[in-house]
Amino acid sequence: MYKETDFTKISAEVLEQLQKGAFLTVSDGERTNTMTIGWGSVGFVWKKPIFMVMVRYSRYTHEIISKAKEFTVSVPLGGQLKDALNVCGKKSGRDIDKFKECSLKTEKGLAVDTPIISDCDAHIECRIVYRQGMDGNSLAGDINKNCYSTKDYHVLYYGEILKAYKK
Amino acid sequence: MYKETDFTKISAEVLEQLQKGAFLTVSDGERTNTMTIGWGSVGFVWKKPIFMVMVRYSRYTHEIISKAKEFTVSVPLGGQLKDALNVCGKKSGRDIDKFKECSLKTEKGLAVDTPIISDCDAHIECRIVYRQGMDGNSLAGDINKNCYSTKDYHVLYYGEILKAYKK
Repeated sequence: MYKETDFTKISAEVLEQLQKGAFLTVSDGERTNTMTIGWGSVGFVWKKPIFMVMVRYSRYTHEIISKAKEFTVSVPLGGQLKDALNVCGKKSGRDIDKFKECSLKTEKGLAVDTPIISDCDAHIECRIVYRQGMDGNSLAGDINKNCYSTKDYHVLYYGEILKAYKK
Repeated sequence: MYKETDFTKISAEVLEQLQKGAFLTVSDGERTNTMTIGWGSVGFVWKKPIFMVMVRYSRYTHEIISKAKEFTVSVPLGGQLKDALNVCGKKSGRDIDKFKECSLKTEKGLAVDTPIISDCDAHIECRIVYRQGMDGNSLAGDINKNCYSTKDYHVLYYGEILKAYKK
């Protein structure tokens, strides 16, 4: 049973766990993949609740999300699925089927066609409303050096939160 | 007395009040201005706590923040300062001194030179680490129509949260 909730109500625990890892799941209708994210933001923009995720150009997930209309973020608030978070952050969906490899169960999203990861506690389902590749020239020098030594920048995907809910 | 806090701890109440209004204060060393914001986001990006604010190109605040290195966000969690939020959202700092007009008291930031607005409950002090003007072509059509009928797009300013605290 899921309990739908205002996005602001779960923002604190989602942001806290996000720093330890959450699953970003994307699908372009043909291919579905999930990857571990540790960065993102939650806010209110354009009169809408918005969740922002970031995907580097080099990622298999980027191949998919660049053709997608939506994404889901599944958050293991209880600290479970650590091994899966580890694998899904290090391996590429180009090489393995992460769902099979990690025995990750999925289920249908409530508002989107992209699945959510079962056994997570909080889920955020989004429609992509804005996307923009980063411009490294406008980034603080220390961050550019720390996070983008190979110039493999992120594309920022802003999703309108259609559903936010906890188990 | 202020109590410093983890940014995630106050994210829920900050995001809730933000939708009703908060003060974005900027200074370029010579000029200081504040404006009402209703949009923004809080997150963890580039290994740092990040608060994102948006300022339209046409704004007096944009003249200042485009030359600034930091900003502060002051949030009246108790619903006070409604008249000031109203004036600071409608009038331009080009025409009036908003601090004088609204009898807004300010005080020094703890980590930045830009002041904070007294009589607010929560304060977020940021160093600007990334800025990027919006590309209307990558925005969902309904939002483009709703929010940018005059093409007066926002510039997104991402601030590293140096201090987040509540009274």
